[in-house]
Amino acid sequence: MRLSRSFGKTLRNAPADAETASHKYLTRAAFVQQVAAGIYSYLPFGQRSLTKISNIIREEMDSAGAQEVSMPVVQPRELWEKSGRADTYQPPLASLKDRRDRDMVLAPTHEETTTFMAAANLESYRDLPFNLYQIQTKFRDEARPRAGLLRVREFEMKDAYSFDKDEEGLDVSFQAMAAAYHRIFNRSGIDVRMVEADSGPIGGKDSNEFVLLAESGEDTIFVCSDENCSYAANAEKAEFKKPAAEPEQARDLEEVHTPGIKTIEGLAEFLETPVSKTVKAVFYAPETSTGDEIVFVSIRGDLEVNETKLRNAMDGAEPRLATPTEITAAGLVAGSASAIGLDADDGPRSRAKITSIVDDSVVESPNLVAGANKTDYHFKNGNYGRDFNGDVVTDIAMASEGDACPNDCEGHLVAHRGVEVGHIFKLGTKYSETMGATFVDEDGIEKPALMGCYGIGVGRLLAATIEANHDDKGMILPRAIAPYEVYLAGLNTNDETVVAVAAKVYEDLTSAGVEVLYDDRDVPPGVKFNDADLIGLPLRVVVSARGLKNGEIEMKRRDADDATMAPLADVVGAVKAALL
Amino acid sequence: MRLSRSFGKTLRNAPADAETASHKYLTRAAFVQQVAAGIYSYLPFGQRSLTKISNIIREEMDSAGAQEVSMPVVQPRELWEKSGRADTYQPPLASLKDRRDRDMVLAPTHEETTTFMAAANLESYRDLPFNLYQIQTKFRDEARPRAGLLRVREFEMKDAYSFDKDEEGLDVSFQAMAAAYHRIFNRSGIDVRMVEADSGPIGGKDSNEFVLLAESGEDTIFVCSDENCSYAANAEKAEFKKPAAEPEQARDLEEVHTPGIKTIEGLAEFLETPVSKTVKAVFYAPETSTGDEIVFVSIRGDLEVNETKLRNAMDGAEPRLATPTEITAAGLVAGSASAIGLDADDGPRSRAKITSIVDDSVVESPNLVAGANKTDYHFKNGNYGRDFNGDVVTDIAMASEGDACPNDCEGHLVAHRGVEVGHIFKLGTKYSETMGATFVDEDGIEKPALMGCYGIGVGRLLAATIEANHDDKGMILPRAIAPYEVYLAGLNTNDETVVAVAAKVYEDLTSAGVEVLYDDRDVPPGVKFNDADLIGLPLRVVVSARGLKNGEIEMKRRDADDATMAPLADVVGAVKAALL
Repeated sequence: MRLSRSFGKTLRNAPADAETASHKYLTRAAFVQQVAAGIYSYLPFGQRSLTKISNIIREEMDSAGAQEVSMPVVQPRELWEKSGRADTYQPPLASLKDRRDRDMVLAPTHEETTTFMAAANLESYRDLPFNLYQIQTKFRDEARPRAGLLRVREFEMKDAYSFDKDEEGLDVSFQAMAAAYHRIFNRSGIDVRMVEADSGPIGGKDSNEFVLLAESGEDTIFVCSDENCSYAANAEKAEFKKPAAEPEQARDLEEVHTPGIKTIEGLAEFLETPVSKTVKAVFYAPETSTGDEIVFVSIRGDLEVNETKLRNAMDGAEPRLATPTEITAAGLVAGSASAIGLDADDGPRSRAKITSIVDDSVVESPNLVAGANKTDYHFKNGNYGRDFNGDVVTDIAMASEGDACPNDCEGHLVAHRGVEVGHIFKLGTKYSETMGATFVDEDGIEKPALMGCYGIGVGRLLAATIEANHDDKGMILPRAIAPYEVYLAGLNTNDETVVAVAAKVYEDLTSAGVEVLYDDRDVPPGVKFNDADLIGLPLRVVVSARGLKNGEIEMKRRDADDATMAPLADVVGAVKAALL
Repeated sequence: MRLSRSFGKTLRNAPADAETASHKYLTRAAFVQQVAAGIYSYLPFGQRSLTKISNIIREEMDSAGAQEVSMPVVQPRELWEKSGRADTYQPPLASLKDRRDRDMVLAPTHEETTTFMAAANLESYRDLPFNLYQIQTKFRDEARPRAGLLRVREFEMKDAYSFDKDEEGLDVSFQAMAAAYHRIFNRSGIDVRMVEADSGPIGGKDSNEFVLLAESGEDTIFVCSDENCSYAANAEKAEFKKPAAEPEQARDLEEVHTPGIKTIEGLAEFLETPVSKTVKAVFYAPETSTGDEIVFVSIRGDLEVNETKLRNAMDGAEPRLATPTEITAAGLVAGSASAIGLDADDGPRSRAKITSIVDDSVVESPNLVAGANKTDYHFKNGNYGRDFNGDVVTDIAMASEGDACPNDCEGHLVAHRGVEVGHIFKLGTKYSETMGATFVDEDGIEKPALMGCYGIGVGRLLAATIEANHDDKGMILPRAIAPYEVYLAGLNTNDETVVAVAAKVYEDLTSAGVEVLYDDRDVPPGVKFNDADLIGLPLRVVVSARGLKNGEIEMKRRDADDATMAPLADVVGAVKAALL
């Protein structure tokens, strides 16, 4: 392609709100244009990259035995009522009324539609397994779209859905997809790590994310420091060995005066006890609550609440911090609250609907300092089971760097920033049961199919690649997903020989199957070099009067510091070798 | 692909509301599944056909020099306010509020977005021409989706937009697209006719439709009977030579008593004059009018109103018939109305906003019988210009079969039914002016770009092909767009040799690059034959015990009546030859 004929102009400046490298460079290099917050058009360069990524994905999905389908963007809300997600999906479903006043939604994902499709075409165990995928447009009305293509509202996504007759089959399908994902990212030229992840609004038990490590990533992942340990997890999901409390005999509960003490740190200091010997109360409410519901969280003073784990403990309801008004109305005393006495005659539970969720660390730690539910007083020697109880006891603690790895190893957790580029889930029967995707098994019994689902954001993969591969001049694109392989420039546009040779090199390379972007513009060399660096094609080839004197052209890999000279006579061979 | 592993079950019965062949067969053959009215999922067979059509389109667009982009489904309403189409587009834009309470729409077409993109990347005449295309999802909230994929609400469309510096350039771009369209339809194996068409809500002056002739088509097209004449037009647009009135001296206006006469036919009979010597009044209102606006149409008694032409005469406002209440309120007398006296002191124009639109036939016909605007009275010798006038005089008459061709030939119009599969438009500067897609020309003057736009509905092309190519057993798919090329069946599933040979033929054909759907199911031959006919792949290959006795397999083209036998030894050669 001649650059003079290629649509799209590179920009000297990125938009004012562009903070991440991919946002800046994708905009400046004319890969994308913003149409609204989180909504983009792809210009020819961007579209070419998108197509290359899509083709890699398609080939690997096909070779893993998945079958391509396509499902609609606009769907009846009814379908989502069937699965139970119409009102609970996060972010909330974008909704509209059609001309006939029917409630429609824009699909953020397609579990419902696929299950509906499967239900109509599944009869017997002989029909299983199958795996359906599409590369298709999704809409998620994110509250805060950001970072260009990293967090958008409308996007192209490859989503696949597997159906199996039993858990063993699901394991096989899940592993096949994990393997396909590794191949896809490998072929795209990016280095990802598979980590354990929370399943979020998609649901199901197990899920794994594929994360590309990059400083600007919005996700934190923890990786075990022990080389022999494979533990890696998103911070939302990460577990760790909590520092164990020393075993002690339970002592008698004892009220102590703690004048002016409002924080756990202050309390520990005042009572000369470690924070790990205290229990902290944190008040939440379900996001949708209008004021009469409190989630009373008890966690050891040395730990912090992980709100994703808390959401799972709240059966998927999104938690928010309770307001001072809500706390007071429930008769809770901020700064001196504990689960002790929640059920007292005139206690908090007599005034508000309170769910007590207790981190498992509290259960195993004896003789904790806890709130006395009156200002300036605390208890010593609070013991779970004897002095207070929880409606739910589970792990709701946030892992931090340095925490002990949950695996049976000597390692500790090391934090990295990363961008999620893929996510695979074991859904189980969550959708097949509610939406009737059942089959008659060999034993004659009707059963719901076991499902998995598997997503990759196509544009996000491009953006993440740039986050991990750029310098201060522009992108450094892997060959497999760059819009072209070679940026060819003739420098001295007044020199007829240079122009003729550059045109000849363009033709020769193109005929040899190399994808060339030929900068044939009549602009100064500096402009061409800047655009070459910005657009970040793997190899720059320069034809100049100086080089031609020696019968040479200049080649520079975008990811190398120095240029090399190659004989003009073997330009095709030299370029092909340099691209490897 | 082994049919036993391919997702989707053929159905014995079509859905009750399926009336057209494509709707019935695409559903029964598991190409598509309806999700809501006018909203479909594509199953693997359908998706494969869609991909093949898309690839043909993509190749021809690329080779015509168009550049692929992609633009969003969800867009800010603001963009449509800029072009002036936010409230006028038909069908009305599907609209939603996003989480931040912004007005968004689902794009039914992308003139606005492309022009917005062009405006940001167009500076000089040197940047022109360019042509941007995408294959992308559209949503049009049709009031009455019907006929399966023929009239849907959500669909994949290839839309291209050309930008040129002048009319000559636009002509070149337009012709290049017309040529590409002919190649696309040719390669897809379907026979289309290019006809003149109305531009509808897309706007612009000239447009051509590509129509596939099929009885079930919802469009009527007229083609000239003269073989040497190329005239062909959609009925909405079709012109014709109106029977000329005999020249006469204008006679004096004369009121006549016409007791009980309410129709033009009755009037002509009563006055013993041909209907072509009468002028008929028809009352319309703009669809959005709430009752105080009348469009008073005068047309010769022998002609009917073409509402598409009328809409254009109304500057694009959709016409509807006026209600009896509206007519009476305006002081108009149905059955005896005419434009004569519209402006009388106490006349209709003193009571309502009335636009008088007159078909050009009326202007050229002297001494017409017209209404006298009082019950049971008419005028003789009404003459346009002397007795009444029109605010707009133009052609608003509907062509009928047998009408004289508008070209300079001896032919007449012959009606055909057809399905529109493509539409190309010369838009001119309609969008570039309002949305700022301007450039500085060689003369230093800033000018708006001249635009064209070019659409093909991908799914519609598949459905139209089936409308034109089917029998009572199923589809007859052209090789280029069939999901597979060969339907291979082994008949005697209990015969190990048959099973082994069929599997071997499957492998041999697949290795030779033939796309085979191998019916490996353990079902009776009748089921296999029925499915083969229903799915309609170009060639059926049957391995049977009887054939193998002679070392032969059976081949039957789906579009042929009879099967032939071919030597098993050369099955690949025979199949490849039969596919040509």
